[in-house]
Amino acid sequence: MRAVDIIQKKKEGKTHTKEEINFLIKGLMDGTVEDYQMSSWLMAVCFQGLNEDETAYMTEAFVNSGEILDFSDISNTVADKHSTGGVGDKVTIVLIPLLAALGVKCAKLSGRGLGYTGGTVDKLESIPNFKCQLEDNNFKNQIKTIGAAISAQTPNLTPADGKIYALRDVTATVDNKSLICASVVSKKIASGANIVVLDVKYGAGAFIKTKEEARELADLMIKTGAKLNRKFEAVISSMEQPLGTHIGNSLEIIESIEFLKGSYNEDLYDIVLEIAGHTLILANLAKDFNEAKNLIDEAIKSGSALQKLKEIIKAQGGNPDCIEDCSLFNVGKNKFEIKSKSDGYISKLDALNIAKACKLLGAGRDKKSDDIDFGAGCILNKKIGDKVQKDDILCTLYWNNVEQTRLNEAVKYTEDAFEYSNLKPEIQPVVYK
Amino acid sequence: MRAVDIIQKKKEGKTHTKEEINFLIKGLMDGTVEDYQMSSWLMAVCFQGLNEDETAYMTEAFVNSGEILDFSDISNTVADKHSTGGVGDKVTIVLIPLLAALGVKCAKLSGRGLGYTGGTVDKLESIPNFKCQLEDNNFKNQIKTIGAAISAQTPNLTPADGKIYALRDVTATVDNKSLICASVVSKKIASGANIVVLDVKYGAGAFIKTKEEARELADLMIKTGAKLNRKFEAVISSMEQPLGTHIGNSLEIIESIEFLKGSYNEDLYDIVLEIAGHTLILANLAKDFNEAKNLIDEAIKSGSALQKLKEIIKAQGGNPDCIEDCSLFNVGKNKFEIKSKSDGYISKLDALNIAKACKLLGAGRDKKSDDIDFGAGCILNKKIGDKVQKDDILCTLYWNNVEQTRLNEAVKYTEDAFEYSNLKPEIQPVVYK
Repeated sequence: MRAVDIIQKKKEGKTHTKEEINFLIKGLMDGTVEDYQMSSWLMAVCFQGLNEDETAYMTEAFVNSGEILDFSDISNTVADKHSTGGVGDKVTIVLIPLLAALGVKCAKLSGRGLGYTGGTVDKLESIPNFKCQLEDNNFKNQIKTIGAAISAQTPNLTPADGKIYALRDVTATVDNKSLICASVVSKKIASGANIVVLDVKYGAGAFIKTKEEARELADLMIKTGAKLNRKFEAVISSMEQPLGTHIGNSLEIIESIEFLKGSYNEDLYDIVLEIAGHTLILANLAKDFNEAKNLIDEAIKSGSALQKLKEIIKAQGGNPDCIEDCSLFNVGKNKFEIKSKSDGYISKLDALNIAKACKLLGAGRDKKSDDIDFGAGCILNKKIGDKVQKDDILCTLYWNNVEQTRLNEAVKYTEDAFEYSNLKPEIQPVVYK
Repeated sequence: MRAVDIIQKKKEGKTHTKEEINFLIKGLMDGTVEDYQMSSWLMAVCFQGLNEDETAYMTEAFVNSGEILDFSDISNTVADKHSTGGVGDKVTIVLIPLLAALGVKCAKLSGRGLGYTGGTVDKLESIPNFKCQLEDNNFKNQIKTIGAAISAQTPNLTPADGKIYALRDVTATVDNKSLICASVVSKKIASGANIVVLDVKYGAGAFIKTKEEARELADLMIKTGAKLNRKFEAVISSMEQPLGTHIGNSLEIIESIEFLKGSYNEDLYDIVLEIAGHTLILANLAKDFNEAKNLIDEAIKSGSALQKLKEIIKAQGGNPDCIEDCSLFNVGKNKFEIKSKSDGYISKLDALNIAKACKLLGAGRDKKSDDIDFGAGCILNKKIGDKVQKDDILCTLYWNNVEQTRLNEAVKYTEDAFEYSNLKPEIQPVVYK
């Protein structure tokens, strides 16, 4: 078997055998297949696609390229969740303590932000002294003792995906359904949870632009999971406007704490409810969605979910006092208010524009090695459908240290994110399915 | 400018600017564009194509990546020729001394064989002590003094093409018209000749399978040359069956010597005549094709072309006695006769099958570092259209040292190369245009 023949086969639109996929993935890891052969094959895949079997073979090869975590000694119902990435997406930070408070063991592995997409690890690290690099043993012990742990992904899980993901990023081969699916599903399988709910986002602030594509990707991920004997559920949700009101690392933790104190934005609540509800049913802790909703609302009202967040923060070395005292967070010393240019209704609030603005203020990074400013970001006062009058404050930008030209650019992006209409626009629910 | 954005652009089928092409090619040479980015772009090009302008930009970038030879101090009409590669293609070895004998200065840079295609350099090196690695100065001096030199391509000419060609070979991105064109035309421009006749081959033994594709490639090469201020001519010729009767390194030199002694196979004569004729007209040494043919036939009849070959061999360190004494060549000590399985006419003689057989016998190489056996190959007794009786000898295989399984395979390929018919098949002329 030769890599060049396998590439040629895909170029001609033919279907690979499991052996061929394994040859490529193993070869990439042991050096017998070169990076430049892999990238050429990835481009051929972008044009010719992979079928469901090929996608499952690739996923399995990723899983087998590294360590596979096993929680069977802790529980048969360990939960995990994955989002395809969005702007202001702090669902994990709310969801994990909420589920753990309700008795679901949660083993959550998260990533850092890159480009316009934030990462849960960065957000959590904005909590003073919080540690995300947990050893496998500590990760498991914490799940055993307090019911949940959130850790940065280790390079030992699915290293083949890590290598291929890095290649895709610089060879314009990111946007293929099967490649995305194999990357996500393999990580979720290797991280060992047996209840996995996927949050597939579409819209301006997501890399999937349409509802239809999101549905196709969700279907493929569920099918791929099934071929590898894992039951995945998927939620399809909109990322036209940012999720919730706060965008930026510290700011999103602050919004998450507020949420667990009972003060939340509807769209964030809706999606947390959807994912938590599905998980509780899969874990046999609720018999239907109504019962799940009651449990969730009660966990918020009673303060048990907030208490669980405090425990997680404490267990991972963070300062739990931040729950009561927001001044412990780094929030940008400088601020700028963006005001409405017109009377009427907000008809559009472009998530990608807001993400670009926050990145310019220092909340995101271009390269993995870039530093980020936990205090940078923005708080939205108005969202789609809200009535505004000229000069109402639409949102406030926060930053610590940004040069004037970048700041001007950030202001411009934010202003351009908003569009106005005379009639109240129809509001699409954030959760589609 | 970022490589990933340029790749994305081609993936989407958009057109590159000259600056973008230069960015890629220069970046590949200085290390700012990675091999894996180039190979991904090459695959996108295989799907989306390059237009004529993009092809010319790429060709020019290849030329400018290295040294450019200049013969203007020798003559204004220095000739060169290029074949897209075929089986038994010894045209260069006959053509160069023939043209030089008629007063055309010839500066021929040739390559080695790879895969199923032979290389002129390998063939010439089967002449005892013949040296193909000429320094630029020696190359020029020899053209000045005896009118012709044949040298291996130096890595100083079009190094960007060298690098990209090596990548294409292992990433299944060889068969794109624009990539082939840029590779060939840039080499011919950098090697400095101002009369260039291209021999574009199609059929079973060529990598271009149809006449139509060959014509498209020829047109593109002529247009690309014109965009870069060089006048190229192209001949389109068939490679359904091997050219001439001898295939293999020593054997092809022997056939070439026989040719210049006046004993030749018609198809080889036709193509030599076509290319030499065009060159003589372009060099203002003949006013029309008839006059050119008379000159060519006379150069063979008089022995002046053979004498010129002797001079070239002597100038490049080879033993000129081989012209008179074929026993000085390494010809396989072992032989095997392939016999006709039926009465009738030969209706097909598959060039690719013959090439595969010769490669198995040791005449070709899989990797650049492989050794080859100059003595391996075959001599055809029958070609398409020839009448045969059962058990007539169709061809003879030659080799020195081959294990039995490879030998059996070679015999099988050779036998399968021949097909028979009851009626005399219509014979297609070797030169199409």
